[in-house]
Amino acid sequence: MNTQALQQKFLKIRSHKAFELFIVFVIIFSALLIGAKSYEIPDNVQLLMVWLDWGITLLFLIEIVIRFIGEERKRHFFKSAWNVFDTLIVVVSLIPVDNSELALVGRLIRIFRVLRMISIIPELRLLLNSLIKAMPQLGYVVLLMFIIFYIYAAVGTTFFAEINPVLWGDISISLLTLFRVMTFEDWTDVMYETMTVYSLSWAYYMTFIFFTAFAFLNMVIGIVVNVLEEENQRIKDEDDKAKGKASLDDLQQEIRELKGLIVARGK
Amino acid sequence: MNTQALQQKFLKIRSHKAFELFIVFVIIFSALLIGAKSYEIPDNVQLLMVWLDWGITLLFLIEIVIRFIGEERKRHFFKSAWNVFDTLIVVVSLIPVDNSELALVGRLIRIFRVLRMISIIPELRLLLNSLIKAMPQLGYVVLLMFIIFYIYAAVGTTFFAEINPVLWGDISISLLTLFRVMTFEDWTDVMYETMTVYSLSWAYYMTFIFFTAFAFLNMVIGIVVNVLEEENQRIKDEDDKAKGKASLDDLQQEIRELKGLIVARGK
Amino acid sequence: MNTQALQQKFLKIRSHKAFELFIVFVIIFSALLIGAKSYEIPDNVQLLMVWLDWGITLLFLIEIVIRFIGEERKRHFFKSAWNVFDTLIVVVSLIPVDNSELALVGRLIRIFRVLRMISIIPELRLLLNSLIKAMPQLGYVVLLMFIIFYIYAAVGTTFFAEINPVLWGDISISLLTLFRVMTFEDWTDVMYETMTVYSLSWAYYMTFIFFTAFAFLNMVIGIVVNVLEEENQRIKDEDDKAKGKASLDDLQQEIRELKGLIVARGK
Amino acid sequence: MNTQALQQKFLKIRSHKAFELFIVFVIIFSALLIGAKSYEIPDNVQLLMVWLDWGITLLFLIEIVIRFIGEERKRHFFKSAWNVFDTLIVVVSLIPVDNSELALVGRLIRIFRVLRMISIIPELRLLLNSLIKAMPQLGYVVLLMFIIFYIYAAVGTTFFAEINPVLWGDISISLLTLFRVMTFEDWTDVMYETMTVYSLSWAYYMTFIFFTAFAFLNMVIGIVVNVLEEENQRIKDEDDKAKGKASLDDLQQEIRELKGLIVARGK
Repeated sequence: MNTQALQQKFLKIRSHKAFELFIVFVIIFSALLIGAKSYEIPDNVQLLMVWLDWGITLLFLIEIVIRFIGEERKRHFFKSAWNVFDTLIVVVSLIPVDNSELALVGRLIRIFRVLRMISIIPELRLLLNSLIKAMPQLGYVVLLMFIIFYIYAAVGTTFFAEINPVLWGDISISLLTLFRVMTFEDWTDVMYETMTVYSLSWAYYMTFIFFTAFAFLNMVIGIVVNVLEEENQRIKDEDDKAKGKASLDDLQQEIRELKGLIVARGK
Repeated sequence: MNTQALQQKFLKIRSHKAFELFIVFVIIFSALLIGAKSYEIPDNVQLLMVWLDWGITLLFLIEIVIRFIGEERKRHFFKSAWNVFDTLIVVVSLIPVDNSELALVGRLIRIFRVLRMISIIPELRLLLNSLIKAMPQLGYVVLLMFIIFYIYAAVGTTFFAEINPVLWGDISISLLTLFRVMTFEDWTDVMYETMTVYSLSWAYYMTFIFFTAFAFLNMVIGIVVNVLEEENQRIKDEDDKAKGKASLDDLQQEIRELKGLIVARGK
Repeated sequence: MNTQALQQKFLKIRSHKAFELFIVFVIIFSALLIGAKSYEIPDNVQLLMVWLDWGITLLFLIEIVIRFIGEERKRHFFKSAWNVFDTLIVVVSLIPVDNSELALVGRLIRIFRVLRMISIIPELRLLLNSLIKAMPQLGYVVLLMFIIFYIYAAVGTTFFAEINPVLWGDISISLLTLFRVMTFEDWTDVMYETMTVYSLSWAYYMTFIFFTAFAFLNMVIGIVVNVLEEENQRIKDEDDKAKGKASLDDLQQEIRELKGLIVARGK
Repeated sequence: MNTQALQQKFLKIRSHKAFELFIVFVIIFSALLIGAKSYEIPDNVQLLMVWLDWGITLLFLIEIVIRFIGEERKRHFFKSAWNVFDTLIVVVSLIPVDNSELALVGRLIRIFRVLRMISIIPELRLLLNSLIKAMPQLGYVVLLMFIIFYIYAAVGTTFFAEINPVLWGDISISLLTLFRVMTFEDWTDVMYETMTVYSLSWAYYMTFIFFTAFAFLNMVIGIVVNVLEEENQRIKDEDDKAKGKASLDDLQQEIRELKGLIVARGK
């Protein structure tokens, strides 16, 4: 009985808007602290920052505990990937890192705390979900693109490796060079160099740019536009339903009732 | 009685197409004057330009007064943000600025007069409104993007600050460098430099470009396309309604009437 | 009678697919000739090319005459902008240009002959029309963009003219520099230079890029997508109509007839 | 009888998921082998790789044979472009290439084996098909774009050939330079150079960029979005049909039946 009352109370705290806002404020403060560390700071301020850092870790720990106790079914808590992420970030922050090698890990963990913003603000979570939803469709586009990249990289290495090994030395370097060409970053320098040996090599770059930058970027846009439209359509459909608007199926139902009525009265 | 007659008369002037066109012409002339000032000009022409400038300020003042008197309910006048903007621009222009420090402010105010074009032409106001409408949706995308930028900047500063402090010295410089990478501006130079120390740092840039330039630019496009489509849909719906086209609800209504008729006649 | 028979005959020639294909071939040949002139060519070939050029002009003249005679109502011929363009190109080609100054004009006219491709191939004309259709909507976006450019150029000239007069000397140079920044072309070089004097000038570039490159490019995309969708919708609607598919209005009509029937039988 | 039983058996093998996965694995392994060849490798490993290469060719040969025997009607097998491609790749791989000149061809053939990924994975084939579907619409856009490129290249060669023959020497070089300008790759360097002679040449670049990069890229996006939408609409329509949802035509049918009923009962 007592545990349940506690759980109800903590659920109340957790659902409170002020609690959420406070956590958002703590995360922003934590982010600013990380940023501040990148500037030259006097020693006494640095000490203060270490204390502030521990304070933030403590606040995060308390928050997680509140959210965990507030959860009705404890098992469900760790089913949410965000809860697992939050807990991990806090737990790893608690490990004291004096060792200089681990210090870097500790620092990175503190940076990733900023990602907690996404786990706290529902709108950001929604945005990320719609991106993840687009992934399976994007997956095959990325695979097709990688195949094109790989073939061009293999051809590039075969022909251009001797011209400039820094850009075309092996297949992984060639892939990087092709990515650079795709972003149009000084791609003409790369082309003019190979054109001195193979004067027709402009066709290699032209077709590559056409295949990747143009065709595929557009496909990505198309898919994202689609996902967003579907999402909007879904929301609109639900809205229409809620407002009790007539659908074609409703009309069909009514016409059938009408027919039944006429048939019945005909007897 | 007299005031109301005056108001009616001024409302007429204000609504006149010629009045609007004249003001547009004055704004264009004012813009050309600002442009002309950037060239080398002889002293006597410069004197003429000062007089022309005062003339424009006077015309703007008269225009605002006409529009204010023409307004039926005076309180509503300042409820429009554009009216407040127009008045501010004119009032600040009236302050004489001989002091060299304030002269710069005076000059900037004269530049911002060009923005009055938007407050005068309704189509531009409409365009801006649809952009502002997209803002709440865009807001969260920008926030998500800033979180990604911040995390990458913090990681970048941690690892690359010692390699090139000009590009990665502190978090704000890193943010600027990352913005540069996002626009593909000589980003390979930035990458090749860090790859000399951390040979795997290409993954840092690749994932960053993937997350920001690709995924998010597409989201922005998606949202804008959406807003425009909604707007068009709304216009089309209103158009359909005005033309008296049958909607599904109309059909349902008619079928129900039919049913009522049959039931009534059955009695 | 004789004239009409001639007109009918020429209309037949003109509508013939082979005639159209022949003209397309002549245009392509004319384009190749222009291209060939840009290479080093021996004198005797050059003489041949002059003769070929006169041959093309003659063929074009014959074509226009056939199309003109084939036209039923002569006045309608010059109502089409493309016919006027075709005639102009041919007439100007006929003027002998020995004078070296006019030779350049003659050369340019021959280049613009390639544009005749659009006037001959209906699909290209359709494509151009849909672009022109989008123009009024695009017009205001371009105006809004120009206002933003102008304000930023005026501010840029005010502050940066003394730092680098080559890039910010007067308002027209500044406009060009800002266009360069919008295309992300070495924009960081421009920024880093002004940041040495005004360390906060990054905000000037950031906001400018945000306002122009991002927001507006997206609007342009949005509008074009819209125009294409409308076009497609229109085609689909016409298609549906042609196929005799039921529309909501048809249904309403039928329900009303039903009601009339019931009411009539009730008497 | 025996042949048919064999065919049925091989059809079964061919349709098996494990068979498909195994082939995908072999293709990936073949791709990695190609990539590995671009690195420095000791001689004994190189010998192993030759053997592995023959193994892959053998596996591909067996796969094609299985798929061919599994095909019910042998003639249909070569009607699929992908089957022809697969067979060609394997057959050419079988030709021993000791001659150094042919060795390059053999190497390229081995690279193109990666494309077999598309012929194996149905989702990639679907993606490519939707791209090919968009081609006819894209074709005219590409033609219109080429006309614009050609005219600008001819004008560019006429005026700028003497300024910089490396960039504007003849029409094909000019086309390449204009493609570079379209991708915004150091286009200001090209412009500033010609502006020293023709100070108004910025208009040449501005209009070119406007016509190509902006207007046309957007058209391409528009078309691709369209194709994707149509595809989705088609899928949705089929889905609706399958679910037995009421269409407007169904409703019309029912209303007509109703009318018939009333008329019939009135007799």
